[in-house]
Amino acid sequence: MKKIAAIGEIDLIRRIEARFRRIGPLPRAGIGEDAAVIRLPGAGADLAISADLFLEGIHFRRRDFPAEMIGWKALAANLSDMAAMGARPLSYLLVLGLPGRLPESYFNGILSGLGRLSTRYRLRLLGGDTCKFSRLVVGITILGSLQQKRFLPRTGARPGDQLFVTGPLGGSAMGLQLLRRGWKWQSGRPLPPAGKDDSNRKIGLRAARQAMRAHLMPDPPVGTGILLARHRLASAAIDISDGLEIDLERLCRASGVGAALEEDAVPVAPCLREFRDPRRSRKVALSGGEDYELLIAVPPAAVPRLGKAAGKGRRFTCIGEVRPRRFGLRIRDARGVTRPLAPRGFRHFSS
Amino acid sequence: MKKIAAIGEIDLIRRIEARFRRIGPLPRAGIGEDAAVIRLPGAGADLAISADLFLEGIHFRRRDFPAEMIGWKALAANLSDMAAMGARPLSYLLVLGLPGRLPESYFNGILSGLGRLSTRYRLRLLGGDTCKFSRLVVGITILGSLQQKRFLPRTGARPGDQLFVTGPLGGSAMGLQLLRRGWKWQSGRPLPPAGKDDSNRKIGLRAARQAMRAHLMPDPPVGTGILLARHRLASAAIDISDGLEIDLERLCRASGVGAALEEDAVPVAPCLREFRDPRRSRKVALSGGEDYELLIAVPPAAVPRLGKAAGKGRRFTCIGEVRPRRFGLRIRDARGVTRPLAPRGFRHFSS
Repeated sequence: MKKIAAIGEIDLIRRIEARFRRIGPLPRAGIGEDAAVIRLPGAGADLAISADLFLEGIHFRRRDFPAEMIGWKALAANLSDMAAMGARPLSYLLVLGLPGRLPESYFNGILSGLGRLSTRYRLRLLGGDTCKFSRLVVGITILGSLQQKRFLPRTGARPGDQLFVTGPLGGSAMGLQLLRRGWKWQSGRPLPPAGKDDSNRKIGLRAARQAMRAHLMPDPPVGTGILLARHRLASAAIDISDGLEIDLERLCRASGVGAALEEDAVPVAPCLREFRDPRRSRKVALSGGEDYELLIAVPPAAVPRLGKAAGKGRRFTCIGEVRPRRFGLRIRDARGVTRPLAPRGFRHFSS
Repeated sequence: MKKIAAIGEIDLIRRIEARFRRIGPLPRAGIGEDAAVIRLPGAGADLAISADLFLEGIHFRRRDFPAEMIGWKALAANLSDMAAMGARPLSYLLVLGLPGRLPESYFNGILSGLGRLSTRYRLRLLGGDTCKFSRLVVGITILGSLQQKRFLPRTGARPGDQLFVTGPLGGSAMGLQLLRRGWKWQSGRPLPPAGKDDSNRKIGLRAARQAMRAHLMPDPPVGTGILLARHRLASAAIDISDGLEIDLERLCRASGVGAALEEDAVPVAPCLREFRDPRRSRKVALSGGEDYELLIAVPPAAVPRLGKAAGKGRRFTCIGEVRPRRFGLRIRDARGVTRPLAPRGFRHFSS
């Protein structure tokens, strides 16, 4: 009998989509977007809504992930979906599966992290569900509003559009590496493992701090997403949650286009450059997940306006161009050699 | 160090509420209701929204719960929340944690059950999240609309209001008992275990079918909830998910009132009467969870109108009366003896 692991995430989602496509009224955006968009009769703004799971043993290990960051990151991943739609986050629901043996302090820590990020965005916790469970499960459903009923779809990229990212990549993947090597996060600071492993001693505390913060406390570009939607600066957007290569492939598939990526142009997180040689750093920046920056397609006519928006403390880096579908996905490396892109990054159910 | 199991569900929710009370704009209804209610500027209807987890090993065991019913029941529990608010369900999000070894057919079964119930209510699946996980997790967030911006709160019960339930209780608890004894559900029919246990042979197949359907495929009174809200027939409502006694206690606490319950008046599911002696049946009807009927408080002036609504194929059974808070919670048994009510039913984290 065939098992789920043999099917793969993309195919599972396709099956869900196929099964439910014809049931109920069509939303403005649904399965396959970073968030769904629904229109409520009479309302001045459309509603964006998205749900994510944050799971012990899959997205984090309890032994090395500080409780506070579990709350923070679970909510941040949902804020990233709002950013990718250009929505202003409003409120959220929280479902918790809690092991009976979970220390009270850990539970309080989760609430504390959620509270910090909620306060920053003035997000109201609307309700949810709290259950006993064998493993720690944090699930968040976030609601956001789309002013002027504009949103950033995954489907709007057209050949000739320029591809930009909103920030450096690979920092989160480096942070994860540090956790795996035994680094801890204590009182807002990175703590190297006790052993005398030379490779750890070579990493500066500043770089370690940047990397661990990128992994534990990502800070999605919510304001940038709102700006992009309001001024119609992007034809398409996706958040980089599973790695640039995979998420570029998703955006291109949704838009029915190809793309040419300039490997050299991809901004590499500074901490990563200290950690790995340049070649390896670029690879991590291309495939490391959970940076929660945005990948956007910008029509040529909008590029100058994007430049102005960038002036206000935002940074957009052009990393390539949208091409017709038949072009496929290609990447040009530092030596000028172009090769087909075979996306690497995080996929559920891939072994 | 104190563990979660020592805190208890109610106290956990209180802590969550206390931590987040002051963050973000107040919704019309929030934590502590069956669903949250938010108002969107300009919209003709308010939005009700609720999230629930349906967890392997807690809410179901995979070995005896047919896959299709996992999909059905997870969604039904959410529909019950909409019923309790008087909301018309519109659409939902689905998050899945799937063990890699889960058979493909089981996954398809879950979708099939979800699809059946979605079709009945024309509910659109808006999106969600699909992850690999060690145990099966089904999480649903449901959206509903509140016409005329009226909803059924938990907080509105006043002394003198009559307490009604919308249907017989205890059937689901009996269905669970049958599953535990080895009964199976196959091709829409109950199948007794192979052994020669006399207690199983005494149970009629018709009663077994009713009980197992009540447990596996509950059918919440969504239309009734909408009717109650539209015609302002109830001052307060709650769905009976964890048992009448516990949910009555919740409703009374939320409303700041007491209640007098008539044990004899509580409608016992007919299948249960065949299974247990009258005394035990009543006990199960009072404390068995997951019947997903509604408990409502009806102001005396509205009782006649409720009678008319009942004429249209709906049944409301009066089971007691709301009293002042100082009265507490009391139950009068068949012999006319009144005693304080010490709620029994399902609570997470209680041992």
